[in-house]
Amino acid sequence: MSARLDYISAALGKKRLTLAIRNAQLLNVFTGEIRQSAIGIYKDRVVYIGAPSGCPPAAQTIDAKGMVAIPGLIDSHLHVESSMMTPAKFAAATLPHGLTTAFADPHEIANVLGKRGVKAMVDDSRGLPQKLFYYAPTCVPESEAVTAGAELTPHDIEEMLGWRGVWGLGEVMDYPAVLKGEDKMMKILKIGAEHGVVIDGHAPLLTGLELNAYVVGGAEADHENFTVEAMLEKLSLGLYVKLRGPYILDPKKFVKALQGIPHPYNLILCTDDVLPDNLTRWGHLDYVCRAFIQAGMEPVEAVRSVTLRPALHMRKFELGAIAPGRMADIVLLDDLRRFNVQLVIANGVPVAKNGRMLVSIGEREFDASTRETMKLAPLADEDFAVRPPRSNGTVEINTIDFGGYSKHEDNGVAFANMILTKMNRGRIRVRDGKLSLGEVALVFVFERHGKTGGKSFGFARNLIQRGAMATTVAHDSHNLLVVGTDVDDMRTAANLVIRSKGGIAAVLDQKTLAMVKLPIAGLMSEHGLTRVSKEVQQLRGAFRTMGVLDHPYMPLPNLLALSVIPHARITDKGMYDVDGQKFVPPFP
Amino acid sequence: MSARLDYISAALGKKRLTLAIRNAQLLNVFTGEIRQSAIGIYKDRVVYIGAPSGCPPAAQTIDAKGMVAIPGLIDSHLHVESSMMTPAKFAAATLPHGLTTAFADPHEIANVLGKRGVKAMVDDSRGLPQKLFYYAPTCVPESEAVTAGAELTPHDIEEMLGWRGVWGLGEVMDYPAVLKGEDKMMKILKIGAEHGVVIDGHAPLLTGLELNAYVVGGAEADHENFTVEAMLEKLSLGLYVKLRGPYILDPKKFVKALQGIPHPYNLILCTDDVLPDNLTRWGHLDYVCRAFIQAGMEPVEAVRSVTLRPALHMRKFELGAIAPGRMADIVLLDDLRRFNVQLVIANGVPVAKNGRMLVSIGEREFDASTRETMKLAPLADEDFAVRPPRSNGTVEINTIDFGGYSKHEDNGVAFANMILTKMNRGRIRVRDGKLSLGEVALVFVFERHGKTGGKSFGFARNLIQRGAMATTVAHDSHNLLVVGTDVDDMRTAANLVIRSKGGIAAVLDQKTLAMVKLPIAGLMSEHGLTRVSKEVQQLRGAFRTMGVLDHPYMPLPNLLALSVIPHARITDKGMYDVDGQKFVPPFP
Repeated sequence: MSARLDYISAALGKKRLTLAIRNAQLLNVFTGEIRQSAIGIYKDRVVYIGAPSGCPPAAQTIDAKGMVAIPGLIDSHLHVESSMMTPAKFAAATLPHGLTTAFADPHEIANVLGKRGVKAMVDDSRGLPQKLFYYAPTCVPESEAVTAGAELTPHDIEEMLGWRGVWGLGEVMDYPAVLKGEDKMMKILKIGAEHGVVIDGHAPLLTGLELNAYVVGGAEADHENFTVEAMLEKLSLGLYVKLRGPYILDPKKFVKALQGIPHPYNLILCTDDVLPDNLTRWGHLDYVCRAFIQAGMEPVEAVRSVTLRPALHMRKFELGAIAPGRMADIVLLDDLRRFNVQLVIANGVPVAKNGRMLVSIGEREFDASTRETMKLAPLADEDFAVRPPRSNGTVEINTIDFGGYSKHEDNGVAFANMILTKMNRGRIRVRDGKLSLGEVALVFVFERHGKTGGKSFGFARNLIQRGAMATTVAHDSHNLLVVGTDVDDMRTAANLVIRSKGGIAAVLDQKTLAMVKLPIAGLMSEHGLTRVSKEVQQLRGAFRTMGVLDHPYMPLPNLLALSVIPHARITDKGMYDVDGQKFVPPFP
Repeated sequence: MSARLDYISAALGKKRLTLAIRNAQLLNVFTGEIRQSAIGIYKDRVVYIGAPSGCPPAAQTIDAKGMVAIPGLIDSHLHVESSMMTPAKFAAATLPHGLTTAFADPHEIANVLGKRGVKAMVDDSRGLPQKLFYYAPTCVPESEAVTAGAELTPHDIEEMLGWRGVWGLGEVMDYPAVLKGEDKMMKILKIGAEHGVVIDGHAPLLTGLELNAYVVGGAEADHENFTVEAMLEKLSLGLYVKLRGPYILDPKKFVKALQGIPHPYNLILCTDDVLPDNLTRWGHLDYVCRAFIQAGMEPVEAVRSVTLRPALHMRKFELGAIAPGRMADIVLLDDLRRFNVQLVIANGVPVAKNGRMLVSIGEREFDASTRETMKLAPLADEDFAVRPPRSNGTVEINTIDFGGYSKHEDNGVAFANMILTKMNRGRIRVRDGKLSLGEVALVFVFERHGKTGGKSFGFARNLIQRGAMATTVAHDSHNLLVVGTDVDDMRTAANLVIRSKGGIAAVLDQKTLAMVKLPIAGLMSEHGLTRVSKEVQQLRGAFRTMGVLDHPYMPLPNLLALSVIPHARITDKGMYDVDGQKFVPPFP
């Protein structure tokens, strides 16, 4: 607000408003009332709300009769990389869903490229009609059990906090480090406290003393809620609880529990990860709102959970409400319960209508150096060679077992069960030194950042039934993960991804069923939503053919290498017992 | 929180807690629930809340069976000077009422002493068990119609924002300057925005376009609510609305209106000005809570209005809740509805019990130079000489007429009517050049800051019936104001105050009925609550004898010189038509 006087003059009707919205049913997030109102806008700010008759004249007027006006949606916890699009393309894809502000933790790209990756995201977000802020990632790499492309030191984090567009500390995932008081983590939390910034959290399964201690450490929010008990305990401790919506939890159960308490001040809705096909099929944060409203949440509360509360949480006091002096970020809905976004106004400018952008986000060159992160040459047969302890008969193996085999349940109830694994013993037949894959799949992880050149292999059950998939989207270190029941298919899939400089490939009987090219850091496509969404749909189809354990929220192989999720994983360093924090050999 | 690790260890039970409160009914301000809980404290912070059985052992344990635990009360808008005590004595007087944090606008002393006065307040507040923060006053002097002891420039304000203990911009009272976009005001608001600090407001009577424009200017709060309509409009515009409680408004009416809206996020309770006798008689912010609860407000909402919401409003995220990581400021009540404060814990230490301090606030030397602000020599007969245009008969005069003559209504409904004045015409008899005072009182204002040495006189009706009162508590410039119906009594009262270096004197028939000595800046006593309260009670008694227009909230003569309150006032420069912003002569 450079010339305050101009805005005051406009509010008084002495200067022509740039835009007026008349006859909207304005949902007031402060009072919870809905009232026929006019909204007067001067440049990027709201300068009037009140009776339609009292609104000063404007250069442009929108008649919003029959529509409901709510503040622009704010997502306080998401990862742009999960959309497989660059920030500018993400903005173009999500603004039509009413998302005018997002706070993104760029820890995926940071694991590949470090500070440089974060910088590329921040740069790509400059001047967008969507306000895209970034957290400084706090846990890169996620643990010592992996080789990531980069490490972020406390010093790096402090530096990033000084960058325009960086706002807060990203999810403190390494809760064991908090509870143990590890030096690096203590330094990071101290930096957050000294800078007075928001500290996002991540505390799955913690409860009681440990949860209290984690909160004492400084985290202010959490989005890992698989049970209503966890949600209620976290709410009572003052954490902002961010429910991720119907992918991962059953909204009905959570809404019912929330109705049992007087008025939760710190409940927020967020998306976390939205894959491109889901974005096309269901929407974004608008979908989360719709789902919770359908599950019984009062629409006013749903709206507060994606506007006023995240604004307060994120200390962005100029956002989150349609009120004088605030940013003119406004969403017009057809109806509060249907929650279909009709028109989106960002910074006082109509930017999207009926699902389409009204303004064009010019082509941007995403930092070219981010396309050279695949430090692997094409792989050969011998790269997939496995020498069992005997050449014929059966041998004992350690396997990572997935539990609930895919039922493709859309409401995501199953995800919490699907994501947890067990380290089990199994047996596999061997003939002439060759493994008889099938019930058990082979897994390879190739370090692809040019750090160690290392690789590992192991076994997994209930993950894939036939063929092979290879991916560089392998949280969080994003090495090259290859799973399959056929070594030739595995090599082919791996080489498809390597030649594309990153991506996800599905191969069966030497045929490429699907390929999503992600050359930017091995995580993001060069294309916009329409194309990426189509590619991912094709990939999901291939997964069904191949019996890959998939879930609408995320295909499960993507999480096989994430060394902080219980109970068994595999990283570039080997098969990993998460609970015991130790590696185990494929052949015990 | 210097050694974060120690706090985390304490939370995990690896380090002995310093204090545990067991068996309290904990009111959780986040969820609104009340639940039997234990509260674990390490040094100054809460590190555990949860089941009593789960609480780690502590060096000291308080059994709070039968009591309700709520967060320490936070007053986000008050003036310490109105207590007539220095900050340290104010803290000792209000901590037993549960006030663990206050945000004070020191504009009274700033009008006398400028930055130096603010500094003295800040210095006196250091290291107190009460967290006393100060706003940088924005409107000193209140207008150009007065001569104050000092002026605060935008530069001064920016400097003060850099002081430890200064937090935010004080109430932006000069709303005409905001609406006109006056240069100095624009500069001040810009400084506030650039520093990202809270900007407190003051917008009586503004509505519609003007209120919108005022909010666009940057103010975030308002405490001037005389009608429910004003309150509702301000809430809907996103202002934090601070209700001052039963002195000034009828809680029943306001509670009823609030029950008509779903859930006001931005409703706060505050005190503003509490005179010492009221503090003794009724209490402080606890009294405001009690009154609103008795008027029908849900206790949980009353508590939120004095804890979580002011903490969010003031951007003090470590305050406002009993939760891990937050400051251990806790109040134990006998009962939520009776709202009697039993025990007060501040920064983890029990500081007050059953109305008495448990810890002693050592004697402090308040900056001695603040005692030399009375720059007037004793006054003589001729200083009160008035020469009417004719020596005998009747002459026409301009008079400042007060409306509702004192009914001493405790619930304060009358105050809104009592405070507003009118500039009227009247007639007064003259005999041998002497005015026949009685129905009309004579008023003198002497500039007492050594700036101009000027004085003015005028007439007032319905303000005093007999005798004289003199005061240096004459908002906001705090010159020496003398009102009376007898010139000898006026001179005597004035000289009593001058010799005391400030204060309030009541004289009838040359007898001193009451005298409150306020040598510190002419605003504050050297004594603590017991004595000051007794003196003010005596003063109120004298006012009743003399027929001085008085109200529990504040005696009305104290506001006679405040040039920004409608509609007629008198300053050291003369009788003043506030609406017309012009001076009028006593004899037209």
